[in-house]
Amino acid sequence: MTPDGFPVVGIVGAGQLARMMVQESVPLGIALRLLAERADDSAARIGADVVLGSPDSVDDLVRFAQGCDVVTLDHELVNIEGLEAIAATGVAVHPRPDTLLYAKDKLHQRARFAQAGLPVPAFAGLPSPARGADSVAAAIVAFAVVHGWPVVAKAQRGGYDGRGVWVLADERAATVLARESVEHGTDLLVEQCVPIEREIAVLVARRPNGEAVVYPVVETVQRDGICHEVIAPAPIAGTLIDEACDLGLRIAALVQATGIVATELFVAGDRLWINEIATRPHNSGHFSLNGCATSQFENHLRAVLDWPLGAPDLLAPHVVMTNLLGVDAEPLAPRLPAALALGVYPHLYGKASRPGRKIGHVNALGDDLEEVRARAVRAAALIVGGG
Amino acid sequence: MTPDGFPVVGIVGAGQLARMMVQESVPLGIALRLLAERADDSAARIGADVVLGSPDSVDDLVRFAQGCDVVTLDHELVNIEGLEAIAATGVAVHPRPDTLLYAKDKLHQRARFAQAGLPVPAFAGLPSPARGADSVAAAIVAFAVVHGWPVVAKAQRGGYDGRGVWVLADERAATVLARESVEHGTDLLVEQCVPIEREIAVLVARRPNGEAVVYPVVETVQRDGICHEVIAPAPIAGTLIDEACDLGLRIAALVQATGIVATELFVAGDRLWINEIATRPHNSGHFSLNGCATSQFENHLRAVLDWPLGAPDLLAPHVVMTNLLGVDAEPLAPRLPAALALGVYPHLYGKASRPGRKIGHVNALGDDLEEVRARAVRAAALIVGGG
Repeated sequence: MTPDGFPVVGIVGAGQLARMMVQESVPLGIALRLLAERADDSAARIGADVVLGSPDSVDDLVRFAQGCDVVTLDHELVNIEGLEAIAATGVAVHPRPDTLLYAKDKLHQRARFAQAGLPVPAFAGLPSPARGADSVAAAIVAFAVVHGWPVVAKAQRGGYDGRGVWVLADERAATVLARESVEHGTDLLVEQCVPIEREIAVLVARRPNGEAVVYPVVETVQRDGICHEVIAPAPIAGTLIDEACDLGLRIAALVQATGIVATELFVAGDRLWINEIATRPHNSGHFSLNGCATSQFENHLRAVLDWPLGAPDLLAPHVVMTNLLGVDAEPLAPRLPAALALGVYPHLYGKASRPGRKIGHVNALGDDLEEVRARAVRAAALIVGGG
Repeated sequence: MTPDGFPVVGIVGAGQLARMMVQESVPLGIALRLLAERADDSAARIGADVVLGSPDSVDDLVRFAQGCDVVTLDHELVNIEGLEAIAATGVAVHPRPDTLLYAKDKLHQRARFAQAGLPVPAFAGLPSPARGADSVAAAIVAFAVVHGWPVVAKAQRGGYDGRGVWVLADERAATVLARESVEHGTDLLVEQCVPIEREIAVLVARRPNGEAVVYPVVETVQRDGICHEVIAPAPIAGTLIDEACDLGLRIAALVQATGIVATELFVAGDRLWINEIATRPHNSGHFSLNGCATSQFENHLRAVLDWPLGAPDLLAPHVVMTNLLGVDAEPLAPRLPAALALGVYPHLYGKASRPGRKIGHVNALGDDLEEVRARAVRAAALIVGGG
């Protein structure tokens, strides 16, 4: 609590998710404290209460949490022992370390989800890197003999060189990856490759007591493994929408989430498969900032404070979010007016533009999906300079 | 500009209007700098770039403005010479000092508006305090002989003891006020008392080039001279709505406003009379934070940066704003959940509660005006503790 009786929420990490939480914290009188690695991190640029430190350091985490009523996260790359140490001082941590493990450890997640009867592709853990590359490669091939090529390999936690997922076409690709991953000491799992028609996502906001709201199911349009667009509501059959909502709620309950849980799903024919989950606000929910009665960021804050959740209803028939991926290194502000003239809502993350860098997103609302989508794409191109 | 090419907007004053501008500046990547009198001012609590200083000091103002692309205001109590000094350094000031004069000097405003044929009540400037109380009282009586009792006296600028408007029933009241105002050295004007049926307000956002948008006309419900509720749209005849919009636009053009101009109007029968204007975001526009496609705070920032304005369209058939006026000195946060459960949008200003202090507002949206209004009032009572 502040001296004036307002709650203090600490956020580990000061990226764009924290930045949007800062924005959404203002009306509710929540005092946010940020643990930033750098003073010019996206959220640190706008936060009034910024502590510099590392999310890998137990000491930094515990020091940061002093005086907070609750601590939450901007990203998963946080020392779990540090979070447990915070909880041991009596400060609530949401998501809880055991919830976070579902997002951090993909093998843990697959195993628990399969056990609960949730639709995950066939999978297997691979031998540890200590067993050597031949052993890893042989296990991949053995999996492919049963499930067919290609297969998908994933780092159990994190990844290396900025990658954590590899589609392997054949034994040769498996051998290359096995050698590489053993060099990096990275544990892998292998999965059946699902014939993906579309990708969709469902966000749930959940309180500690189990009260939950479900956001409209969205389609996420990916190119080269990067989310480019989010379309709300997803233009898919109502039966799949209902199933996705049900899965989102079941997963939120299973992982005992507090806050936002995003579930990414593959659509293959009339079936859904679970791809990934995130136990924090997620790119697939950025449309909610202008598109919903209550944004995912506000509901995340409400949930971690155990306050009643706001309605997730759409404010227009169609909402499209387009990510802003930098094309050049020019200043963004001079290019903003042309986009604003299109009647869209830009969200800039306070980052200088660089080729390929995610520097913001644009939300557009309207009655005609194709018009809204074209407007969002056009506005994004004007801002990043590829227009 | 920041090193990364984002515009820097300076706001003189760090009250709740600045606070809501901070919130709305985030998505657009605007770097806000605040000139705060105290480190715990409403907006200073959440701003990342706060300069302490006085809006009365030319030196403080000029120092504050260095590095800003444009300077705007949270309130009118700013040294006009200081604003002119900022403009002389090449930093844009919006509203311009000559625009601000319409809000600061009521006699100036009445004279210019009457000259332009705008509907202001009959008025007269009163003799300066140097001429003595008898002279002031005699002029009030002379005005009342023509226009009838009661009359309304106003301080030309500011006021004293927290008051600036007095309704005078008779010669005796006039004599008392004349004596008091001469003691305080306060210049007055006197006006005909209009038979007020309702009060309404219209907000216009205007760019330097004259491009403007008009917000839905609202009814402002006052008690004891304090705004308690704002109802959007105002439940009045369409002809009055049209006339109010027209007046708002004419006034914005006349005063050469950049940013928000709020015009408060009296409804008397089928006529409108201009009450006051403010050349900044205004309490009568707080409903726009949840109720409109673009808030008054965002459009104020867009306007002072000469960026395209956003649509002011309502997002629901009815929107009601209720001010939160403190009842006790208890912490607010524990009382917030009960209000959130009603599905309203609280906006707290980060101020501790004290009896009579404006500590925030609540917005409510819906299809049925009476239901929305009752919900907003109920939520407000729960938060302030009078429920």
